[in-house]
This record gives sequence, C-alpha cells and structure tokens, in this order.
Amino acid sequence: MQTTEPYKGTRDFYPEDKFIQNYMFGVFADVVKRYGYLEYDAPILELSSLYQSKSNDEIVSEQTYIFKDRGNREVVMRPEMTPSLARMVARQRQELVQPIRWFSIPNLFRYERPQKGRLREHWQLNVDMFGVEGIPAEHEMLNIIQDIMVAFGANKEDYTIRISDRRIINEVFQQLELNENQIPLIVGLIDKYHKLGLNVFLVEVKKHLTQEQLDSGLDKALSSLMQVKSIDELSEMFSLETTYELSKLIEKLEEADQVKVVFDPAIIRGFNYYTGIVFEIYDSDPQNSRALCGGGRYDELMGLFGVAKLPTVGFGWGDVSMYEFLLSRGLLPKRETEKSLRVLLLGRIYFEASSIIAALRDNGIVTVVDMTDRSLDKKLKAADKDGFENCLIIGEQELKSKKFTLKNLKNKSQDQLTLSKIIEVFE
Amino acid sequence: MQTTEPYKGTRDFYPEDKFIQNYMFGVFADVVKRYGYLEYDAPILELSSLYQSKSNDEIVSEQTYIFKDRGNREVVMRPEMTPSLARMVARQRQELVQPIRWFSIPNLFRYERPQKGRLREHWQLNVDMFGVEGIPAEHEMLNIIQDIMVAFGANKEDYTIRISDRRIINEVFQQLELNENQIPLIVGLIDKYHKLGLNVFLVEVKKHLTQEQLDSGLDKALSSLMQVKSIDELSEMFSLETTYELSKLIEKLEEADQVKVVFDPAIIRGFNYYTGIVFEIYDSDPQNSRALCGGGRYDELMGLFGVAKLPTVGFGWGDVSMYEFLLSRGLLPKRETEKSLRVLLLGRIYFEASSIIAALRDNGIVTVVDMTDRSLDKKLKAADKDGFENCLIIGEQELKSKKFTLKNLKNKSQDQLTLSKIIEVFE
Repeated sequence: MQTTEPYKGTRDFYPEDKFIQNYMFGVFADVVKRYGYLEYDAPILELSSLYQSKSNDEIVSEQTYIFKDRGNREVVMRPEMTPSLARMVARQRQELVQPIRWFSIPNLFRYERPQKGRLREHWQLNVDMFGVEGIPAEHEMLNIIQDIMVAFGANKEDYTIRISDRRIINEVFQQLELNENQIPLIVGLIDKYHKLGLNVFLVEVKKHLTQEQLDSGLDKALSSLMQVKSIDELSEMFSLETTYELSKLIEKLEEADQVKVVFDPAIIRGFNYYTGIVFEIYDSDPQNSRALCGGGRYDELMGLFGVAKLPTVGFGWGDVSMYEFLLSRGLLPKRETEKSLRVLLLGRIYFEASSIIAALRDNGIVTVVDMTDRSLDKKLKAADKDGFENCLIIGEQELKSKKFTLKNLKNKSQDQLTLSKIIEVFE
Repeated sequence: MQTTEPYKGTRDFYPEDKFIQNYMFGVFADVVKRYGYLEYDAPILELSSLYQSKSNDEIVSEQTYIFKDRGNREVVMRPEMTPSLARMVARQRQELVQPIRWFSIPNLFRYERPQKGRLREHWQLNVDMFGVEGIPAEHEMLNIIQDIMVAFGANKEDYTIRISDRRIINEVFQQLELNENQIPLIVGLIDKYHKLGLNVFLVEVKKHLTQEQLDSGLDKALSSLMQVKSIDELSEMFSLETTYELSKLIEKLEEADQVKVVFDPAIIRGFNYYTGIVFEIYDSDPQNSRALCGGGRYDELMGLFGVAKLPTVGFGWGDVSMYEFLLSRGLLPKRETEKSLRVLLLGRIYFEASSIIAALRDNGIVTVVDMTDRSLDKKLKAADKDGFENCLIIGEQELKSKKFTLKNLKNKSQDQLTLSKIIEVFE
C-alpha cells in the first residue's frame, strides 16, 4: 500500500497551513515593498559549481541534495538563495540600476536530520540591497526587520538583535596571530558557540591550537573574546581600528529605542561570503533557540562572477522558527469562511440553478455549491463543519417563487429572500 | 569563471518577470477563490513509489528528476501535482468535508528537451474537486476556466475547449476488440494525434495491430474514429451507451454560449488515472499549439491509497503556453512604479533624514531611498531609468527649513513642500 505520509523532513500544507504560510509571506512582502524592494525568483535547480567556494562548505558537501541529471550535469537543489541571486545580478550587471533592492521567498533544501526548527524543505524571506557602501544599508535592513516584527504584532521585548562585524573579529584573529588554516576552524566553532556553551567551545578550540599558542594563553584570550558584552569592552582588550561603523549603527538603533540590540562576538554567520557587519535576530524565549533571521554585508561575492565588485547587504528569514515565534505568542490569525455563501441544492437542479449561482458570483460573493446527492441535513452539517455561517437553500420550489432560504448557521435564523436582497445582505 | 546563465530549461525571474508571474497567479487565485477553492501545497520531493502506476509511465521512467537521497531513499522532484494531492487527501480522508475544493500553483519538474512551450521547471495551476459524481462538477471546472479567461481579458474566440470521455473511447475500443496490451499503445498514439497528423498516426497504429485486425479494417475504423466531429456522428458509427453525460455537458455549455466547445476523440490525456470526461483548452492561434490547460475526471486514484474511492475532477493550467497566449494578445499588464517616492539624499545625511523617511512610510507611501555617494544628477538619472516619477530631494538645507523639493520627472515640475503637504500629495 502506498504511504500517505510526506517525505521525511518536509511538510504537507493543508488549506489551514497554507493560509498561515500565505499570511506570513504576505506580511513579509507588504513591509519590504514599502521600502521599494522588488520580488524576483530563481530556479530551484542550479549547477553545483555555483556553490563551490561561495557558500558554507559544510552545507554544500554534507547537506545538499546533489545529483547528476540525465545529461550528466551535476545539479543541486538550492540550499540557500544568495548564490542564485548573485548569479542573476552578475548576469544583468550592466542593465541594473543601483541601488538594487530585491526580495524573494524561495523554498530551500538541506539534507539534514529533521529537528525542531530545521526541516529538509523550508522557506526563507531573502532581502538584499546592492550598491550602497555605508551603514545606512545595514540600518535599512534592521529597520525592515523591526517593521516586520511590528506588522506581525510582536513587541520590542519579544526579540533581540545580536550583532557583530567580521572585520572586528578578523582584526582580533590577526592580533592573536591565528594562522590561515586555523581561522576557518575557529570561525566554525564561534558560529556554534551558543549551541556548544563556553566549556565545550574551549575543549574544541584547544584541539586546533599549537602547544606554543596554548602556552601563550591563546585559548584564554578566545575565552575572554567570547564573553565580551560590548564593543567598548572589546576595545579595552584589543586595539581595534574597525569598530567605528558597528558602534555608530548600534548607537543609532539605541537612540531610536525601538529594538533591543546587543554586540555579540559569537555572531559570525556560517557562510564564507560575509565581509562586514553581521547580525542575527533571536526570540527572547530561549525555548525557540535558533536564529529567526540573520544576514550581513557581503561585498566580495559578485567578484566571483568576473564582474566589478558590488557592495551588498542582505538577510534571510526562515519560516520554521518564525512560525514557532508567532504561535507561542498567539500572533497567528484564524481563517475566516463566514463571509462565503454555501449553496445547498435540493435535488438534481444544478443546471436549473446555475444562473442564480453565476449572479451571486458576479456580484462578488464567494459562492460554494454543494451539488452532491446527500440529504439537506447532511449538507447543512457539512457546511457547518467547514465553517460556513451562511447557507442558501435552492430547490424547485425556490426557483419557481424566486425566493430563496438564507439560513444563518450561527444564530439559527432564516429568511426567504429574493436574489437582489441576498446580494444586498452580502454587500 | 562561474557562468551566470540559469540551468538549462529553467528561468530566472527578474522583477519584471516575477511581476508578470504574480499577475498571472493572482488572476488564477482570485477566480478559483470565488468558487470556494482553498489553497494547499505539497513538498517538491516525493518518494518515487508515489508515481508508480499512478501517473504517465513515460513521464516517470524517462522524464523525471529521480535520484537517491543520502539515506538511499529514491526520491522524485514532482513532475505533476495530482499524486501528491491524492496522497494528501487520502491522509486526511476521515477529517475532510466533501465536496473538497482545493487549488495550488506548484512548480513541476520534467527532464525533457527544452522547446517552445515546454521547460524543465514550470508552474501549473491545479484545481480539483472531490466528492461530486455527476457533470455539475465538470461544468464547474469549465466555468472556472472560462471565468479565468474573462479575468485575463480574453474573448470567446481566443480559445476552444476540446472535450471527450474516456468511457466512450473505452466502449469503442471494446467494440473494435482491441486487446489489453494494445489499448495503452493506441491511447498513447491518440494522445499525440494532433502532433502526428492522421497519416503518421495510422502508420504508427498499424505497427500495433495484428494481420487479422488489419484484414478486418481496424486501422480504417480508427482512422474514422479520429475524424469524427460530433458525438452524434460517433453514435452513428458505434452503438454507444456512455454518451449521455458528455452530450448533456456540451449542450449546457452551448446553451450558455460563452465558450467554444467541440467534441474531439483525440483528447484522451496522457495520465493513466482519468476515468471519465476529459478536456483540453487550446489557443485559437495555431502558432501556440500546445494545450493551455487540461483535465478531467479521475474517480479511481484515491483507491490506490487504501481508502474508499472518491469521485474527483480536476485540471492543470501551465504558465508557459499561457504566457505566450497573453503576450501575443497584448493582455499582459505593465509594472507601475510611478506611485512610489524616490528619496535622493544630498550628502551623507541618511541618519539625519531618517525620521522624515520613516514618517513617509508610516503614511503608506512606498519610499525608496538613494543613499549612495553619487552626485544628485546621477541619482536623478538612476531614478528615471528605474521608472520613478516622483523624487524627493533632502539635504542639510531642507532639513533646516523643513521644506523639501518634490520633483516630478515626467512633467519636469518641482515644488518646495513641507512633510505634511507631501503626504497629502500622495494620499
């Protein structure tokens, strides 16, 4: 027997689920459009070469759906949208007018063990701006995030922006004299810092340091780094030249006092392509422990396509953790069918009633016909179970008298009305 | 160097393309919602077993993206939506209230040679109704199709419904004494009849007939069958018991006189699961030769999931041929950006101007900021190239005087206005 379950790690969207998804994506789209972002999309399949050295190596080598097509091309089901976006922008580099503001809500595929907040197929709002060098671009991104939260009905206390800057961390790495092979390993551990905790983090860090580095206390320096709570504190430990932009951005956000923002050296983002400020948004409820949203600046990615470099900031906002966020706070809406009209036919008179039905629809009434051979009683029960408040009963009698029974299932009232009266009721 | 082209047979959707796609899908959704259809979705990946014996064998064995996942499960990127839909309905068979009316606009994947009207990734409106036995269900489907055409601005003359009934063709096959092995082969050829033409069709048909069948003139009978223009004509050739429903449906459609409908014995639909009336919609322009849309009744599919049989009708409407249809008739809309406001900053005053920008957005104005370091002249040119009609210029002077320059790029006028006046202009 054929199973009816969906493939592991994926979801069926029944109408009640799709309604919620459409609601969430609608809020996303409404807010970003206010900022002038235009929607784009890319194919789900891309050549695997697109991801090489542009993405997170762990994701590409271990977590992608990668296979050969019937023409022996190695293809990947996109695990993230940014490489496709960069390819598209590079493809029309000459024609596109800067700043380029684009968004998309693609589904993405990762072959990983399904767990809370992580699925094999998920959707992600992607918002990107190309062509702006300074922090006004980052500021706009964070304003959008904040406006999306407001549009969902969330409060300032519900979430926190955690922010850092790759340049600052790179400077620290340089001062600590980490070598080039160690850096990606340490970056990988920092990226998992909140999941690992300080102790496990240090155990893992030590594995990648030389005896000499351990003797000079490098592990302790990294431990201090991770526990830093502000840029000022970090500046006391290291002499840093790249803190100005991040400090100013945080200052501006704090001034506006619309959002909680903290410097967090553990925010580094897994993807190789980030070059500057990076940020993640977290649910204040530690139960929902994965980032809701994350992004940053990636100025070098376009260069990989052989076109001139283009300053870029962007973020991605997944649907799975965000659904948990909204659900736990009662911020998800309910689907309303009460404004629709259920038409219950008495006997096989569909064709005789069809001009009435068409007239209802032409007048903008959502008209849902029960043309089954069931009894009226069963039809009424089905309408009620499906959430319909208003039923219109049409039989031979009604067609002759041109008066139809409008029955309200909620308050149990009913009226005999002409077609034009019914249309009035629903106006 | 990394190529910037999309994977063969797929499309990038730049904002102007996505705008058109959103328009088309919006029309689809608006019309079907008037009939009470609810949106659903299913995962793109399904286990390959889902398609075995439920779909078109040629498509599954030769034209799917099929591969093993890292857990050695054989998975398929969905080539059509109906098997996923049937799986979902079977999964909630007990809870769902009939008639079930669902729609979806999934992307589908077929590994085939890309050609006009056929791509490796395409989208398709799917509309299905479960729980209604008689032709009122088919009639609703064809009404929806007609309403979608009206909503797109198409005329009755622009397209034709070609319609047949699998039961009629099965009866003819029985009278012609075709054996069980021959039937699927002949069905396959009938499905390609309009592409092959009568002569090639007959050459191919003969290959599958026995000498005895040829001697008794079976090839000539099939030739006559294919050239039949009406059910009456067919009834003169064969004594048929299953013509009542199709005749009545055609009669009702002709009575309403809103749509061109013809009986066409070549309409048989490639998928194995159809059991009754089948139809396809064709562009009247023979240049656009592929069906725009097709569907029919498939009452047996649910049984494959071990649940009680459920009468079902449905159709699919692809995006590629429909785009050609709309394009060739000038029925595609133009994207309008003139109602958006482009803000041009003079100098690095983004943070100083940010309260003004926020106020504009809070008042419902789509506000798109150019915060690059380019000259005002370059900013004006970029705004114009991007289709903006209205630009608001903000510099230090303007912030002090609280009067801003609103410049109309179309009629070259400009005004010095306060924030509240600007908001009034856009109301």
